[in-house]
Amino acid sequence: MEGVSNEACSLAGHWGLGKLICFYDDNHISIDGDTDIAFTESVDARFEALGWHVIWVKDGNTDYNAIRQAIADAKAVTDKPTLIKVTTTIGYGSPNKANSYSVHGSALGKKEVEATRQNLGWPHEPFVVPEDVKSHWSRHAKQGAELEVKWDNDLATYERKYPEEAREFKQLISGELPSGWDNALPRYTPELSGDATRNLSQACLNAIAKVLPGILGGSADLASSNMTLLKMFGDFQRNTPTERNLRFGVREHGMGAICNGIALHGSGLIPYCATFFVFTDYMRAAMRISALSEAGVIYVMTHDSIGLGEDGPTHQPVEHLASFRAMPNILMLRPADGNETAGSYKVAVENRKRPSVLALSRQKLPQLPGTSIEGVARGGYIISDNSSGNNPDLILIGTGSELEIVFKAAEVIRKEGKTVRVVSLVSWELFEEQTPEYKESVLPSSVIARVSVEAGSTFGWEKYVGPKGKAVGLDRFGASAPAGVLYKEFGLTVDNVVVQAKQVI
Amino acid sequence: MEGVSNEACSLAGHWGLGKLICFYDDNHISIDGDTDIAFTESVDARFEALGWHVIWVKDGNTDYNAIRQAIADAKAVTDKPTLIKVTTTIGYGSPNKANSYSVHGSALGKKEVEATRQNLGWPHEPFVVPEDVKSHWSRHAKQGAELEVKWDNDLATYERKYPEEAREFKQLISGELPSGWDNALPRYTPELSGDATRNLSQACLNAIAKVLPGILGGSADLASSNMTLLKMFGDFQRNTPTERNLRFGVREHGMGAICNGIALHGSGLIPYCATFFVFTDYMRAAMRISALSEAGVIYVMTHDSIGLGEDGPTHQPVEHLASFRAMPNILMLRPADGNETAGSYKVAVENRKRPSVLALSRQKLPQLPGTSIEGVARGGYIISDNSSGNNPDLILIGTGSELEIVFKAAEVIRKEGKTVRVVSLVSWELFEEQTPEYKESVLPSSVIARVSVEAGSTFGWEKYVGPKGKAVGLDRFGASAPAGVLYKEFGLTVDNVVVQAKQVI
Repeated sequence: MEGVSNEACSLAGHWGLGKLICFYDDNHISIDGDTDIAFTESVDARFEALGWHVIWVKDGNTDYNAIRQAIADAKAVTDKPTLIKVTTTIGYGSPNKANSYSVHGSALGKKEVEATRQNLGWPHEPFVVPEDVKSHWSRHAKQGAELEVKWDNDLATYERKYPEEAREFKQLISGELPSGWDNALPRYTPELSGDATRNLSQACLNAIAKVLPGILGGSADLASSNMTLLKMFGDFQRNTPTERNLRFGVREHGMGAICNGIALHGSGLIPYCATFFVFTDYMRAAMRISALSEAGVIYVMTHDSIGLGEDGPTHQPVEHLASFRAMPNILMLRPADGNETAGSYKVAVENRKRPSVLALSRQKLPQLPGTSIEGVARGGYIISDNSSGNNPDLILIGTGSELEIVFKAAEVIRKEGKTVRVVSLVSWELFEEQTPEYKESVLPSSVIARVSVEAGSTFGWEKYVGPKGKAVGLDRFGASAPAGVLYKEFGLTVDNVVVQAKQVI
Repeated sequence: MEGVSNEACSLAGHWGLGKLICFYDDNHISIDGDTDIAFTESVDARFEALGWHVIWVKDGNTDYNAIRQAIADAKAVTDKPTLIKVTTTIGYGSPNKANSYSVHGSALGKKEVEATRQNLGWPHEPFVVPEDVKSHWSRHAKQGAELEVKWDNDLATYERKYPEEAREFKQLISGELPSGWDNALPRYTPELSGDATRNLSQACLNAIAKVLPGILGGSADLASSNMTLLKMFGDFQRNTPTERNLRFGVREHGMGAICNGIALHGSGLIPYCATFFVFTDYMRAAMRISALSEAGVIYVMTHDSIGLGEDGPTHQPVEHLASFRAMPNILMLRPADGNETAGSYKVAVENRKRPSVLALSRQKLPQLPGTSIEGVARGGYIISDNSSGNNPDLILIGTGSELEIVFKAAEVIRKEGKTVRVVSLVSWELFEEQTPEYKESVLPSSVIARVSVEAGSTFGWEKYVGPKGKAVGLDRFGASAPAGVLYKEFGLTVDNVVVQAKQVI
């Protein structure tokens, strides 16, 4: 019933995943009762429409041969995934609870277990495996050992014939990154022309794909907006399985779930996927599974604020940065320029047990002085300061596209004789993991005059600006207008930051 | 492609919505190019599998009669929804951009508009409607006026025949609530036995459904866990359209979208829908649309913390309270007992332009002294205090199931001679809307010794506990164990709150 299953299965049919066999336990019971109360579609016909091979086992309770035959038939079809619909009775054998929702969510209970044993003619004690069952299954140990020997021999042969490919393969499945891979990341100086971080992200992806054979991914039908195409590769399709650009279609939730599968497969592949940041709402369940299952998926999320402009509030994220900062075991990164985008990729690639979300701009941003790949690794760091003794008159904090604003506001306020520190807080999670000494060296507790600027909800910023500070942001939905107009209307300007700063200084 | 469309269309087929006609613009182009790169399923066959009537208009560019006929055929089928697949050329008429993705996301441009006009033989200036088109369409004004007169007459006849039903109907479409409706809400005293707020929620729903004919809703296959059944009504099904229990199946996103439609239809219906709180991740996009579109949907979200116990971290929300508090124009409510649950329903029903999310417990909670329906309306209020002069030694803040913990911790600390105030912060949004004087009367800025307790992420709590306070919560994923064990392991206990309080007092 869940939409994500249709998304994923539609793609599986499109890709012709002939090795995929899904069992559908067609027992007609859901938590609320018979599935007829909400689910009367023809599942067989739907899967056939999705390009699947569909087999129906009419009696999944007792007809083992039909199940064996179905698996054999499924394997024989190699150009389509197979759905084996197995009609069963839920709680089969239980005399009083079979075929009812009461077996779905709770245990049978001692008495009904006893009745079921009697009904099924099962004389053995709990956890006893009868000898004939044991011997029937133990033949698989021998088969498995033979298969392992064969696989080892095949790999040795492959290594002799294709030493370079074998080395790459072994590197991949080792789970270790090739040493020095991060030298491929671009670095920037302030003299270089500015660019949108979504474009800088594409430069990083294309740079690291050259040194990391495990990198593959794509977008949910926004590749040319998310800037996620790997230029040296073609599309992964049913007849081009070695290519690395995945075309997920407009299926965000399925995309996230597929990337979780790729990451958790343990083959060393590093999946990335992309859409507009606001559309994480469609795939949040998959992203939480990344975090919970320690799947190092890289989420490339562009159009990360009202700065996307005319598409308006349906497309403009507001609360999304806060919502991911609140989620355990996920890294929320919002780089400000080229160096910070490269630094974010370094963090994302290195965190193989923690997903990363990169919030990237649609609009052009300058290459700022003071930003660095190393700074990003610490989550928060000073990019400019005219004070000494760790005691500036004011601390301005920005992230992403608003780091430019606080950088310029600092210059204005310094002209009036004040000392101002500018801090980039690119990842709250990484900053919180630093030592208390380091944190104090960036945000000294004695300095209570603080202003943060971020084009999103101010929710959570009290932590860094404190009760006497100001959080400049957007605690309402956005609007449809060019980015410059919106930033001005909502007070995300150098002028307003200067005004706010003077109230706290 | 989006999963939500399959969820909603599967339900439309199940319900046999014969009045629903959907046009599918089958132009084979998506943002990333030809749909063939990601979407090769048979849409016709899928919709037939979902129980729809499917019609194909092969030439949607010029064959107007085929479109007219399709609509007539669709209307003639009254027991199934109809999909009219209309094969078209995107950008039809544009000599250089037709049938390409470049028409999808950007304007044709002046030159290509000119070329298209020439190509289509359209001689008129922009915004000019030729006389023959105008006269062709103006006949609808007369038809519409006639239909309106007929409707008014029908309503007058109905009013004479069925005065009671007509009064109810007029009340509904007025958008106003019947006066005194909230007298139906139950009230509780501490002597009454405790209960899970999900059960108290059911009592409220069943109480208000008697006085609010617009209340209808249901659960995504968790009705018996969410406690959302209206006992005096049956199931809404294709042959029982006057019943009020909706069976959404396991389709959270579709459920939210359907409730948005019901709320925005303007007929005075008040939809509620339900699942486990953690599964808001599946339907967050629909919930954001509620907030953005000012749809007063009531989200009944049970199993609202690790307190749900054994189902474990996949089912235990952690960051969800924070994530909705950060979202604009949505009310996040976490009631602690019977009075607060009733108060939350009062708020939710009265907010017809703002959705409400009710976070409700699976576990039993006591009826606390000091809670009230009126208190909930203010978002935050004092439930007990042994201080005078608005200057207690300590403020303990709790929400929902943890209000009991801070209430008891206060009693322990008071025995040691301290003055302690206990504040229920049931809805941050409502509290922030109060006057500065009221807020200061609840949380005086002079009192910096503050501890908050909530079984969820502490993200955002700095706002209320300040830099010297403590936020007791859970900044990691939960675990699978009985609720009592988890609360103890994670420090959500009276003992730990007392320890934390002593560090700040």
